Amino acid sequence: MSDFSANDCAYMARALRLAERGQYSAHPNPMVGCVLVRDDAIVGEGWHEVAGEAHAEINALQAAGDNARGATAYVTLEPCAHHGKTPPCVDALIGAGVSEVIVALEDPFRQVDGRGLAALKNAGIGVRVGLMRSSAEQLLAGFLSRVTRNRPLVRLKMASSLDGGIAMSNGESQWITGPEARADVQRLRARAGAVMTGIGTILADDPSLTVRDAAIDTQGKQPLRVILDNELRMPLSAEMLALPGKTLVYCIDDDKREALVAAGAEVIKVGASAGMVDVLAVLNDLAGREVNDVLVEAGPTLAGSLVNAGLVDELIIYQAPHIMGSETMGMFDTPGWTELANRKSLEISDVRRVGADTRITARIGD
Amino acid sequence: MSDFSANDCAYMARALRLAERGQYSAHPNPMVGCVLVRDDAIVGEGWHEVAGEAHAEINALQAAGDNARGATAYVTLEPCAHHGKTPPCVDALIGAGVSEVIVALEDPFRQVDGRGLAALKNAGIGVRVGLMRSSAEQLLAGFLSRVTRNRPLVRLKMASSLDGGIAMSNGESQWITGPEARADVQRLRARAGAVMTGIGTILADDPSLTVRDAAIDTQGKQPLRVILDNELRMPLSAEMLALPGKTLVYCIDDDKREALVAAGAEVIKVGASAGMVDVLAVLNDLAGREVNDVLVEAGPTLAGSLVNAGLVDELIIYQAPHIMGSETMGMFDTPGWTELANRKSLEISDVRRVGADTRITARIGD
Repeated sequence: MSDFSANDCAYMARALRLAERGQYSAHPNPMVGCVLVRDDAIVGEGWHEVAGEAHAEINALQAAGDNARGATAYVTLEPCAHHGKTPPCVDALIGAGVSEVIVALEDPFRQVDGRGLAALKNAGIGVRVGLMRSSAEQLLAGFLSRVTRNRPLVRLKMASSLDGGIAMSNGESQWITGPEARADVQRLRARAGAVMTGIGTILADDPSLTVRDAAIDTQGKQPLRVILDNELRMPLSAEMLALPGKTLVYCIDDDKREALVAAGAEVIKVGASAGMVDVLAVLNDLAGREVNDVLVEAGPTLAGSLVNAGLVDELIIYQAPHIMGSETMGMFDTPGWTELANRKSLEISDVRRVGADTRITARIGD
Repeated sequence: MSDFSANDCAYMARALRLAERGQYSAHPNPMVGCVLVRDDAIVGEGWHEVAGEAHAEINALQAAGDNARGATAYVTLEPCAHHGKTPPCVDALIGAGVSEVIVALEDPFRQVDGRGLAALKNAGIGVRVGLMRSSAEQLLAGFLSRVTRNRPLVRLKMASSLDGGIAMSNGESQWITGPEARADVQRLRARAGAVMTGIGTILADDPSLTVRDAAIDTQGKQPLRVILDNELRMPLSAEMLALPGKTLVYCIDDDKREALVAAGAEVIKVGASAGMVDVLAVLNDLAGREVNDVLVEAGPTLAGSLVNAGLVDELIIYQAPHIMGSETMGMFDTPGWTELANRKSLEISDVRRVGADTRITARIGD
């Protein structure tokens, strides 16, 4: 891996930035970027814009035209070798006469999984793998989670005061954070294949969980709305049932299924875990629906149970510069944590101001 | 004020840095620094090291010797004109033949209060005031609070998890934050004339509230230990009663005074406010004892009541990267805050890492 040049790094960094342009529209496909370089000049570039349409490599080859011959292709993910909704990218790369392909990350997707690299090598094309691998892994964390763990990446987003309040005891919670933080949450939603919450939040706030920011181009897609609702207490009048996009209600007791389906929801019965919807079963089901990333926007019950079960991959806290005091709901309901030794440590990866609030991104450790 | 040069600013900044060297030992006197400059060179400098000993100006004049003649003196606070524990600094400045005195801030102390500046002017010395005034005010915030408001500056220090827990419900709280944060608290204590807590913390933790860090030179002084203890529940065996320094116990019912005094405490009866020790009366009493700065290290009851009463001048939170969950004590007990509108906004002035923890410094707004 040490034989990559500074130029190689710069071109791959460019390809990664291009890949990210698909953040709101490429999923469930992975975000991929491609840069074609000949004689130290970029002759074509592209990214995967919308699932079902052309892949990054095809867009880059089209931009390059005849200049692709003899070029080096920098691709953030192993090119596909199978006929999906579009023809294999390796055939296009071979046909265009590229001389070398540099790849950040192997694609673990069952239908690729090394076959793309092998096909290129068989065609006599130089192949090198692993340049900026960790950046690519980070960018594709959700896709990789779905493909390798059969569950989406779970991001838990919370908004709290500096003293850990997320709502008053009477339920009042609009708004803890400022407009910039709420706009940031719109972007988190748009990047997710599904937005999950618990029935408690539905009953308390009747949220829409949709992407409404006109500045975010999701190509018309809305994330799936996922409600964990043990006994189908979901009101038939819930606002989200009338909105564009799909509402999935996971339950353990589906007696009231019919009315809810008639109101527009899809109802899925899953197993119970400690008397509640088995979240892991829900995540597995969502992976089957090609959801890469789940954004959880939940109250203390679901948040606490996810943290306790070790199912949170990334925690995002918007911390408002306020003291809310004691007559409030806390962030995590964790009835079993009675000793300090039960606490979980956080590995904070990013802290930044978002308007007047502070956004803290962390992984949850032991 | 616009006629100060860049050099003037640099010399005053130097004087302010010198002043700060007295942070652990000058109080109850103000921290003061002095720089003497002739022909664009520093010919002497000094700061007020220990209350009762020489003032900054005298130390600087001694360092300068004959070079003080014709020099400009940069002093962070108006020189004194009265005989206190030491003779007036203005006499020394006049006697040494300085030609100009530049002062950051007038001294509102009753026995100075313009007399120092007037004496210098009467002696034909040029006087200019206001250079870097706000920095000087910040440095001397405690002293200014005592002199102008008859109460010390109140700093409330808390240690919490990211979700706002300061202890488990069973009281377990050692340690929420890391060793670096605890060392930082030692410095906060050393800068304070008094460390205050409530009887709840004494009964739960039996803290010492002393400065123990050998790297901090307080010239042997310990901050007063101040306990708010309505009905004198203070155990005679409390550890702090046997430690160097003085323990003041403020109460509203002093029936048990004698035993506690015999155990080494000073007991002061004050009026009640809502059935508890009237904190403002305590602060006034502490001002009378020449306390400039009070560091409050308290549990949720006292912290909440101070915030509610608007008596916190500065809030310092050490936030540990942990989730503690719901079986915990929160930061502020505020039984009357039942609506979101009751929350207080924070004006955050400083955020920094201290070891693994984050220290947040803020003023409490509306």
